[in-house]
Amino acid sequence: MERLPKYIQHAQGKLWLTEDERDNLKISYRIKEVLFEEKSPYQHVMVLDSWDFGPMLVLDGVVQTTSKDGHIYNEMISHVPLAMHPRPRKVLIIGGGDCGVAREAAKYDQVEQIDLVEIDEAVVRASKRYLPEVSGNLSDPRVRYHYTDGVEFVGQVQQEYDCIIVDSSDPVGPAEQLFETAFYRNLHRALKEDGIVVCQSQSPIFHSDVMRQSYERISRLFAETRLYTTVVPTYPGGLWSFTLGAKHALPDPDSIRFDKPARYANEEVLRGCFQLPAFLNEMLKQEPVHAGR
Amino acid sequence: MERLPKYIQHAQGKLWLTEDERDNLKISYRIKEVLFEEKSPYQHVMVLDSWDFGPMLVLDGVVQTTSKDGHIYNEMISHVPLAMHPRPRKVLIIGGGDCGVAREAAKYDQVEQIDLVEIDEAVVRASKRYLPEVSGNLSDPRVRYHYTDGVEFVGQVQQEYDCIIVDSSDPVGPAEQLFETAFYRNLHRALKEDGIVVCQSQSPIFHSDVMRQSYERISRLFAETRLYTTVVPTYPGGLWSFTLGAKHALPDPDSIRFDKPARYANEEVLRGCFQLPAFLNEMLKQEPVHAGR
Repeated sequence: MERLPKYIQHAQGKLWLTEDERDNLKISYRIKEVLFEEKSPYQHVMVLDSWDFGPMLVLDGVVQTTSKDGHIYNEMISHVPLAMHPRPRKVLIIGGGDCGVAREAAKYDQVEQIDLVEIDEAVVRASKRYLPEVSGNLSDPRVRYHYTDGVEFVGQVQQEYDCIIVDSSDPVGPAEQLFETAFYRNLHRALKEDGIVVCQSQSPIFHSDVMRQSYERISRLFAETRLYTTVVPTYPGGLWSFTLGAKHALPDPDSIRFDKPARYANEEVLRGCFQLPAFLNEMLKQEPVHAGR
Repeated sequence: MERLPKYIQHAQGKLWLTEDERDNLKISYRIKEVLFEEKSPYQHVMVLDSWDFGPMLVLDGVVQTTSKDGHIYNEMISHVPLAMHPRPRKVLIIGGGDCGVAREAAKYDQVEQIDLVEIDEAVVRASKRYLPEVSGNLSDPRVRYHYTDGVEFVGQVQQEYDCIIVDSSDPVGPAEQLFETAFYRNLHRALKEDGIVVCQSQSPIFHSDVMRQSYERISRLFAETRLYTTVVPTYPGGLWSFTLGAKHALPDPDSIRFDKPARYANEEVLRGCFQLPAFLNEMLKQEPVHAGR
């Protein structure tokens, strides 16, 4: 039998990807076919065609986004800040190599430039080719690809962007820096006076410490901070949080207008995502967790 | 080594429950300990203490509810109809053997009687003893336990209940009948003129056919039908749907008042759960699926 890529097992005539980065929970996806595999300088990159979720992007054996539900995350991280901003012209995306956020940002006619800063060119290449459901096979001339480190990139700009969207992976390994105060301080400086930044801030149920920590770190730097949630079916915990930061007051969610074509987001959902469940309101009122660095 | 209960495997010094009722997705939970095991006349009943989710109710090897997140489902299936009803006095729960729905209904002072119809007494006994986080170890005298078939029970009552809550398991095996028109017709008859019924109607993402079918069947019988959603972290797909039916117009969600102690539900969430994502609004507008029987 042919050599199987790392992370893929063969059992009773079937192929399976088993995520085993968690100690106490393992999820196995049945796979039809390996569409892409490459060991990049940064990670092991695959696109696997799965039975239940269609083609999925898998980095170091962990599912990042799927054709079935990737649009939910991408629409919700993008359209909340973009629809809240009165006139977003220059957009920065940190991470987001699957190109889904760039695709959503490109739906705004007034957006003139979209800088996508992804360290791993292989992720962009694989997503454009094999994940069109997520990436939209983006060829919009307003998108500029920067294959470089997001932390360094942000450290070099001042008052440049109307919206900054931090589409990071989990805070382990290289992405850890994207949850630290030094990075948030650079985001603040990179933002225009009336700009809005959004950071994915993990699951309120399974990573509540990370969520609270990034919320508190952002709160200490920005004049206004607000948390919202959405459902992400293929992320463990289902419920996912995002944190907005702005140098001035953010508009009332009820004033959000939205008329872009989208599969998940609509005006009601973009307004309603700020209605937090009881435990989350409680959590945000609690004493700060250790918010050092 | 001691004989392990069915569905539990031992690997490298660790215990695992692997749900394998799905063809293309397997989820394995690491287990600390088996708290309860019994082969009832209806199914294999276990309560397992898991590392990530605490004690969980497991029927025929499939996780039904967990101490970590069971309250979300139970609060959302209960408080939407109960808070919408002007004066719920008599409540019927079909299924709900984990007692979580009865616990929520018991928070309403005006509720005088709660009939809980669960076919399997072992589920109630195990949940009261080993799942207090879900069941609340309920000893409220207003709760009457009926260990009998829900379909038959409902067939024998007329205009009895203010709220009926159908907390069914998946529509396979015995629970299949709880998704059929004959059962919905009996629900309609069992309800008082100003009564409200709610049925769990599965995942809009992974079981959209079941969801649409039960929505359509309920729509054809009730004067008003409305769908709402919540997140259920341990159900595959994360997003879950519920369908309300009423013989007269339902109140505007914005008029919902809610002042009960709860961990997930609050007034904003109970009002906001009717804001459906774009694809769901589309789905409900489509041509009916085959809605026979």
